[in-house]
Amino acid sequence: MMDNWRVVEHTFNPEKQHHKETVHTIGNGYLATRGAFEEGYPGDRRATFIHGVFDDVPLVFTELANAPDWLSLYIFLNGKRFSLDTGTIEHFERHLDLRSGVLTRLVRWQSSSGDRVTLVFERFASLADEHLLCLRCQVLPEFDGMVEIRAGLNGNMDNEGFVHWHWLDQGEKDGVYYLHNQTRSTDIEVALAMRLAASPAPSQIDYWDAQNVPTLKMSFAAKRGESIRVEKFVGIATTRDTSNPVEFAIAHVRTMSDWESAFEAHQRTWDREWERCDIQIEGDEEAQLAIRFNLFQLLIAAPRRDNRVSIGAKTLSGFGYRGHSFWDTEIFMLPLFIYTSPEIARNLLDYRYERLPGARRKAQANGFQGTQFPWESADTGDEVTPIWVPHYADRTQLIRIWTGDIEIHISADVAYAAHLYWKVTGDEDWFLAKGAKLIVDTAKFWASRAEWNQETGKFEFTDVIGPDEYHDHVDNNFYTNRMAKWNLQTALDVLEWLKAHASRKAEELIQRLELTPDLLAHWTNVLTHLYLPIRSDGLIEQFEGYFERREVDLPSLEPRHISVQALFGIEGCNETQVLKQPDVLMLQYLLRDEFTDEQVRVNYDYYTARTDHTHGSSLGPSIQAIMACQVGKPDDAYEHFIRAVRADLRDVRHNASDGIHGASAGGTWQAVVFGFGGLHVTPEAWSTQPRLPKHWKRLSFRFMYRGKLQIVELKNPVASARAVESG
Amino acid sequence: MMDNWRVVEHTFNPEKQHHKETVHTIGNGYLATRGAFEEGYPGDRRATFIHGVFDDVPLVFTELANAPDWLSLYIFLNGKRFSLDTGTIEHFERHLDLRSGVLTRLVRWQSSSGDRVTLVFERFASLADEHLLCLRCQVLPEFDGMVEIRAGLNGNMDNEGFVHWHWLDQGEKDGVYYLHNQTRSTDIEVALAMRLAASPAPSQIDYWDAQNVPTLKMSFAAKRGESIRVEKFVGIATTRDTSNPVEFAIAHVRTMSDWESAFEAHQRTWDREWERCDIQIEGDEEAQLAIRFNLFQLLIAAPRRDNRVSIGAKTLSGFGYRGHSFWDTEIFMLPLFIYTSPEIARNLLDYRYERLPGARRKAQANGFQGTQFPWESADTGDEVTPIWVPHYADRTQLIRIWTGDIEIHISADVAYAAHLYWKVTGDEDWFLAKGAKLIVDTAKFWASRAEWNQETGKFEFTDVIGPDEYHDHVDNNFYTNRMAKWNLQTALDVLEWLKAHASRKAEELIQRLELTPDLLAHWTNVLTHLYLPIRSDGLIEQFEGYFERREVDLPSLEPRHISVQALFGIEGCNETQVLKQPDVLMLQYLLRDEFTDEQVRVNYDYYTARTDHTHGSSLGPSIQAIMACQVGKPDDAYEHFIRAVRADLRDVRHNASDGIHGASAGGTWQAVVFGFGGLHVTPEAWSTQPRLPKHWKRLSFRFMYRGKLQIVELKNPVASARAVESG
Repeated sequence: MMDNWRVVEHTFNPEKQHHKETVHTIGNGYLATRGAFEEGYPGDRRATFIHGVFDDVPLVFTELANAPDWLSLYIFLNGKRFSLDTGTIEHFERHLDLRSGVLTRLVRWQSSSGDRVTLVFERFASLADEHLLCLRCQVLPEFDGMVEIRAGLNGNMDNEGFVHWHWLDQGEKDGVYYLHNQTRSTDIEVALAMRLAASPAPSQIDYWDAQNVPTLKMSFAAKRGESIRVEKFVGIATTRDTSNPVEFAIAHVRTMSDWESAFEAHQRTWDREWERCDIQIEGDEEAQLAIRFNLFQLLIAAPRRDNRVSIGAKTLSGFGYRGHSFWDTEIFMLPLFIYTSPEIARNLLDYRYERLPGARRKAQANGFQGTQFPWESADTGDEVTPIWVPHYADRTQLIRIWTGDIEIHISADVAYAAHLYWKVTGDEDWFLAKGAKLIVDTAKFWASRAEWNQETGKFEFTDVIGPDEYHDHVDNNFYTNRMAKWNLQTALDVLEWLKAHASRKAEELIQRLELTPDLLAHWTNVLTHLYLPIRSDGLIEQFEGYFERREVDLPSLEPRHISVQALFGIEGCNETQVLKQPDVLMLQYLLRDEFTDEQVRVNYDYYTARTDHTHGSSLGPSIQAIMACQVGKPDDAYEHFIRAVRADLRDVRHNASDGIHGASAGGTWQAVVFGFGGLHVTPEAWSTQPRLPKHWKRLSFRFMYRGKLQIVELKNPVASARAVESG
Repeated sequence: MMDNWRVVEHTFNPEKQHHKETVHTIGNGYLATRGAFEEGYPGDRRATFIHGVFDDVPLVFTELANAPDWLSLYIFLNGKRFSLDTGTIEHFERHLDLRSGVLTRLVRWQSSSGDRVTLVFERFASLADEHLLCLRCQVLPEFDGMVEIRAGLNGNMDNEGFVHWHWLDQGEKDGVYYLHNQTRSTDIEVALAMRLAASPAPSQIDYWDAQNVPTLKMSFAAKRGESIRVEKFVGIATTRDTSNPVEFAIAHVRTMSDWESAFEAHQRTWDREWERCDIQIEGDEEAQLAIRFNLFQLLIAAPRRDNRVSIGAKTLSGFGYRGHSFWDTEIFMLPLFIYTSPEIARNLLDYRYERLPGARRKAQANGFQGTQFPWESADTGDEVTPIWVPHYADRTQLIRIWTGDIEIHISADVAYAAHLYWKVTGDEDWFLAKGAKLIVDTAKFWASRAEWNQETGKFEFTDVIGPDEYHDHVDNNFYTNRMAKWNLQTALDVLEWLKAHASRKAEELIQRLELTPDLLAHWTNVLTHLYLPIRSDGLIEQFEGYFERREVDLPSLEPRHISVQALFGIEGCNETQVLKQPDVLMLQYLLRDEFTDEQVRVNYDYYTARTDHTHGSSLGPSIQAIMACQVGKPDDAYEHFIRAVRADLRDVRHNASDGIHGASAGGTWQAVVFGFGGLHVTPEAWSTQPRLPKHWKRLSFRFMYRGKLQIVELKNPVASARAVESG
């Protein structure tokens, strides 16, 4: 039977090394560590990313610096170093327990000298104390002789070849060994402090004060069948947390008592997390485990105590996109937190609010007013999308990346998220203090960006990229135009609401943002005359001229293991109607009340046939699943949903090695709750419209409503909602 | 009195740290090591570059990988780590002995605990055994207590943030400790092996087998006034030298006996080097020391046993230009070796010959025939000039580098050097085997590159960059056109000579390179009708339209501490007549017999007034000095010469931190020998035409003629040549 809480692996396949490192990432919302082996393996991409620890890098501006390594633990059996690329692997088993966030590995191994051993490794990043990391190794020798264990901290880490750290200091204090480094450009200091416990006591302990690799060596007289256990506790802190990270890190390992109590506090915290967001699916073990895996990956990247960071597109689990945040956070991941963990959602929205100065710099640099959020965002909130990147095949060429220039819909997406947070949580304090300004100032951007077309008598947005990135430099992308209209209308509504409910705040905003009557009249003018054509049969043209692009018979391209863009080339694909993701459907999902059921159906049928579902955007399948539910096609919905939840577990896009697909993960929660569950929430009440896949016997999910936990139980075949209110 | 052989420093100035690291580079033609401190210093650019050990790097293609560090030696006094950024420096002295290539540092230092010590560090890279590196430290404590010395090998090196190495292995074998790493892309393995000797014997020795930093710790019971001496011998080898670099490196430190005998062999080899190339100047101590320093820097970068490498523009002494070779090698550095050390010159020319396939790939890719040498050359001989580099001031911008596309004169420069080598050394075997082909195949390139202008009835080379890089995208650069003509004419002459002297070789070349009668007739046509206008008064226009560019009164820009290009901007400078270096004069220097004295004088006067001598090209001053001598202005010549020899010692261009200006160094030798000495060599005889600066009492230099060492003695005021033939 499949374990509903454990991602289990029974063989070690070196070819899947980097994919599995991503899958086995652990974390606690402060940092995350990829599932590389303690003892290393040739070519591993071992990495720990700490939220907010960005450093400069040529060409792509800034990236999360791969932190000094806390994992390293080398084991020697009679002088032979344990490593899976030598000797013989007699048994291998690894599992990630999603309920506890503990990664366990069990190996039976024989060295080239013939010494056999069974090793059990466990690790977790404490969710109860974000600055505490725990690692344990049990060694069961099948020989008499010497076992040596070397545990270290290693400052010599790089980001795929680029070094971010320079060494400051290392040493020992009251039995705790520390390493103190600093980022090269941004001057962020990080300290790691290590304490070891061993049973039985080692026959000898040596401290190696080697440059940038402080290491403790413990020697044991090994006896066949008598196990040795070593525990490594690591405290970690940066100057983002405290002015004295060394003392801070040392204190965290000195005050904790032992593995058991650290684990208990950790497990209790995890229990509370699952209590508020677990999803239960009966009748589909794969979907059950996979949805929990997707939730787990978001939970370990979610900042619980820091409102100066966001969640990057690849969470904290890989080098992909360098830790930068996109609309993926607000549109795909944030709903999970808005509905289940509002304080995390608030942290993520605070991150955007505090970066308004960067977004204003971007607007100003482009000749616009108000707030233009960067397509890629990191520490300062300035645009950090790379402009040129080396061509993947031809080293003499650079590819121009245009998203940072013209994928402008993100400003409306962030405003939409702020509005949704307010509507769902009712957090009026936050909305008055921050949310309102965010919505009004992005509206200001849209009004200044709109172009008047004298001939048509319409306002337009030309030369943009919509969510469907197979088509760039397009005019009047419907998603972009409609979200801009939503942003302008909502800003005007918010101003009216403020005048009625918080008139002083309204005045302040009007004054600060220089919202003159003329300007507001212009907003109304823009939103009234925005170019937003809908055909009489309800079909919406994704952008001007889309209908004239070349049609492609997608099934005729099968079997196909690469994207249509890779198949046709960037320009070739641009000339077709094939979509990376159907952004008209995305829009209808976000602004569902603005469209009739018939309009949704017509566009669903048209665009579904034109979308590269298998190898296009990883953002597509979960939303596609929701829209399939809405048009009454739950079997189609399931096909898209299962593709989304498998994205990283099965590496369906062959790039899971770069990190978790965070947007896809967030989308899967939405697909279950709003798609299959059909949850509909208004200020007055909530309801469900269940559309469970045929083989699902039961679906249960949770969310917060008016400050109280709601547990929804849905059953097949007679899908009926049963709500349990708790908390 | 100034020591004529020692570059001496009496204070430590952290602001000049990187400049001084360059100045204090030591090496042996196999590798070189910058003058960073054994114990490190914050922000140091410690680096060892091994010839030919290139590895891939984004954007700029390839670079010499900064090798694992052999220097590291940490000293602890009663537990306090010696470092010049802590405690008190009571005395500091450093000198580089040019006669022996030994770098010595003497420091009296007091720790923060009050313990005083005098430390003497010495290091050299053996010229007798290229795979042997020697380092010694003497510690004279002024206290009783503990002295601890940690000597290690450190694989955690990077190239200004970029990591080229991954760890393979480390360990101990018969008392020798080794580290074995590999470049990440090019898979070149390097091994370092370390053996220590100490006197008195340490009270304890510990080996720290820390990951990638194998370290030996030696503890001494220190007594006031009793000195401790530690010697660190390091063997080094790569898979470019041997299939088993670990064994090879270990063997080199195991077979050597002790410091004294290693040093003696080393010194004997240095004596032989200086015997054949030393320059003596009486009456000018600065010039005497500086010319030796310039020669030293070329000698330590000159490959004596490897014909698969060239000398990069920054020798092996810094990160600048990433170890790439330019025309700097053939036109500026090579004459020193052709005249004094022909076997080194042959190695450097073999490097070009063996890379003909890369140069042909370049020609072919550009649609031309024959051999087009890359503007920047590294391991394969393909073009490795970066195409785009990040803008130094604006991180969102890239600068397009055009030299790799259109600075085409290098193909003639390499041919010129091959011809010079043959003419001076008479090495007919080499010329028949390699040189002839190199000259003929570059001619083939020129003929295919020439453009016929129907209107003028001339062949042209449009859209090029000449040696004066302040002007790019110019048409008919006179230097380029005239050197192309030389290349074509010389190729035809060589073919005639071959037919007369080695007819089989002539036939083979004609067949292999497909030199049809039609093609050769085309060559004659091109060289006869090449656009090469000289005004009736002898003035040559540097390129078409140069005379119409804006004149600038250079003295009116004084005082000026930046280049004219930095002052006016790239485009602004391009519009003026100001030159980075006067390439008409450069041409007249190379093809002196093709111009009358009056033609030289006219152009000298015209272009000298238009050249950015102080902050333009570092290649300019030495050639300017020679031409000043030729027009009878030895005082002007001296001004340019002293600027050239000071280039790195005084950091006149503020970029010596990037490495030695190799072309300038090579130019200074030519300025002394061909400028002040006025040496003129023909197959029949040699003569001098001395033009010594007024204050020089005596000048002596050496060169090989017909396989014999010539020692030239020139005296002032009655400058008379006295030749001593030896060897």
